[in-house]
Amino acid sequence: MTEQLEKLNRLPLRDDLRGLTPYGAPQLDVPILLNVNENTHGLPQEVQDAITASVQRAVSGLNRYPDREFTELRTRLAGYLGHGLGIENIWAGNGSNEVLQQILQAFGGPGRTAMSFPPTYSMYPLLASGTGTRYVTGDRAADFTLSAESAAEQVRAAAPNIVFLCTPNNPTGTALGLDVVEAVYEAGTASDAIVIVDEAYAEFSHAGTPSALELLPGRERLIVSRTMSKAFALAGARLGYLAAAPEVTDALRLVRLPYHLSAVTQATANAALAHADALLANVEDIKVQRDRIVAELTELGLQPAASDANFVFFGGVEDPKRIWQGLLEAGVLIRDVGIPGHLRVTAGTEAETTAFLTRLRELLGA
Amino acid sequence: MTEQLEKLNRLPLRDDLRGLTPYGAPQLDVPILLNVNENTHGLPQEVQDAITASVQRAVSGLNRYPDREFTELRTRLAGYLGHGLGIENIWAGNGSNEVLQQILQAFGGPGRTAMSFPPTYSMYPLLASGTGTRYVTGDRAADFTLSAESAAEQVRAAAPNIVFLCTPNNPTGTALGLDVVEAVYEAGTASDAIVIVDEAYAEFSHAGTPSALELLPGRERLIVSRTMSKAFALAGARLGYLAAAPEVTDALRLVRLPYHLSAVTQATANAALAHADALLANVEDIKVQRDRIVAELTELGLQPAASDANFVFFGGVEDPKRIWQGLLEAGVLIRDVGIPGHLRVTAGTEAETTAFLTRLRELLGA
Repeated sequence: MTEQLEKLNRLPLRDDLRGLTPYGAPQLDVPILLNVNENTHGLPQEVQDAITASVQRAVSGLNRYPDREFTELRTRLAGYLGHGLGIENIWAGNGSNEVLQQILQAFGGPGRTAMSFPPTYSMYPLLASGTGTRYVTGDRAADFTLSAESAAEQVRAAAPNIVFLCTPNNPTGTALGLDVVEAVYEAGTASDAIVIVDEAYAEFSHAGTPSALELLPGRERLIVSRTMSKAFALAGARLGYLAAAPEVTDALRLVRLPYHLSAVTQATANAALAHADALLANVEDIKVQRDRIVAELTELGLQPAASDANFVFFGGVEDPKRIWQGLLEAGVLIRDVGIPGHLRVTAGTEAETTAFLTRLRELLGA
Repeated sequence: MTEQLEKLNRLPLRDDLRGLTPYGAPQLDVPILLNVNENTHGLPQEVQDAITASVQRAVSGLNRYPDREFTELRTRLAGYLGHGLGIENIWAGNGSNEVLQQILQAFGGPGRTAMSFPPTYSMYPLLASGTGTRYVTGDRAADFTLSAESAAEQVRAAAPNIVFLCTPNNPTGTALGLDVVEAVYEAGTASDAIVIVDEAYAEFSHAGTPSALELLPGRERLIVSRTMSKAFALAGARLGYLAAAPEVTDALRLVRLPYHLSAVTQATANAALAHADALLANVEDIKVQRDRIVAELTELGLQPAASDANFVFFGGVEDPKRIWQGLLEAGVLIRDVGIPGHLRVTAGTEAETTAFLTRLRELLGA
């Protein structure tokens, strides 16, 4: 590895990349994977069959470039989101990371600043760095919550060009109130800030939790990003998307690579959207396990954060490395996100969740 | 459209994007599409079936993130390229545009310069702009050829950080000798230049045309990029790749988005590579039509460039716009690449090529 690194350093790499190591959670071969917030429930057979059939129809035309405007997919995504959105409001990419990268290419870059409130999604600083955008961070309260007043005050002071608000927040799992989004948008007016509300986990929120989609009308600097990786159980298919004013999607057309979404990706996502009901039924199961984890961790004397996502972030762990390792030895992989005294676990199937809780109880000597 | 543009201009778009329009050949619904150098022969049924079966196997695991290192795909690509290459030499992305963008993110960017020799692939300046890389151009001879001596002298003078050499060149179709690549690599030593040899159309070269893959050993700043869009008839699947020293692929791991290649894309490309022989048989058919176009255009008094690609660039056209429009009216779409007196046509099936030549003959009054 040292020789390899020496060779890498002899290449004319950009200075800001020197010494970095690639992003990525370990991909370990473990029976119970609760580390990267995947949908643990898999795709119902009817959805698998529909995807295969949809791809089969696309295959005969694969010698041609795909529909550069992915018209059917945008139509279906608009229909799924509702809120009066039309095809002109929708954009998509190979995972929400690509969508976020395109936003930074259009509105960030050298001389511009992006801001977020850690602990939050660990890709934001990497996406900023990859696009030459300066990255600044705001603070949360000690319990990792963020009030409208505090967020707005910090945005006014930092005057960023782009603000990331992740809700439900990764890794903490807690959703922001729409008052926070409204306040940040208003505070960002002075710096003409693009406000990205990253709702990757929105479908897992408790009933009645509003989406920032409600706030889009009249707010042309507001972008709501979503993904099919979580609720739609399509992490392997890489389909992220957003809703925004039509001029935002026009801006992204200036920076997207032509034909960036393959015909196979479009066919896969279209079929899954046609079977949204079957996929979202699994979401309800996952929410039950998520709430069960919060309840049982509380009984164990730990401090789980309120979660509107498909994972639970919990504090009060005396020795996170020992717990993480002990779970791994029992075939359960969870995530150490590097916050002292805390760990994060994805809600599994009922059996997976039971295995996690049983082993954790043993490790805690409870 | 004007109102839409006004709205776009009210957004806090980056200054260098203002006034631009999105890249893209027109996507018109015309019976004979010979405009974007697609493989006009489609996929044999056996390959279509293999791709569908491969995707079907991947679908059950789509709730999980894909193999971030796309190990099977890199193994197959290395095997296909030969030349003693191993998995550690291979990298891939969603189309060669993404691969080239990653190279610019790793080795270009603000304060750095990329160079190419127009007329050449029109995405190079856009990729440079999208990554904040300065873009400079060298000159070709009046007949669009590029000698080793001239290329090396221009690279020495410009001292770029990255050089693009497209061979066979798009839009002219002519392959460069390896002496040009060697001379440019040597001339780029002073500026520590990464030299990218873009061989998107390599499989269509006349027998005996060498690949720059031969030059990789001992040249750690040399990158050979390829695509499955052309010879493999997979433009719709978006799979570009490259071969280079292992430290180059390590550098790209620092800028790639995690899980950038979907499991569906990997499954599609793997199946196509397993049936390379069937796909490459079509390449031989296309080369016959390509050579036929060159011969017949010459007979018509036009000046086709020597082509090692699946398209022909031809000069001596008095009124390219009239010819382009006249062909379109007959249901044949070719490409006006904006070079006075010239047009570009993709080699079609035998019937498509006949339709193009027949209509062209009529339009020229021959």
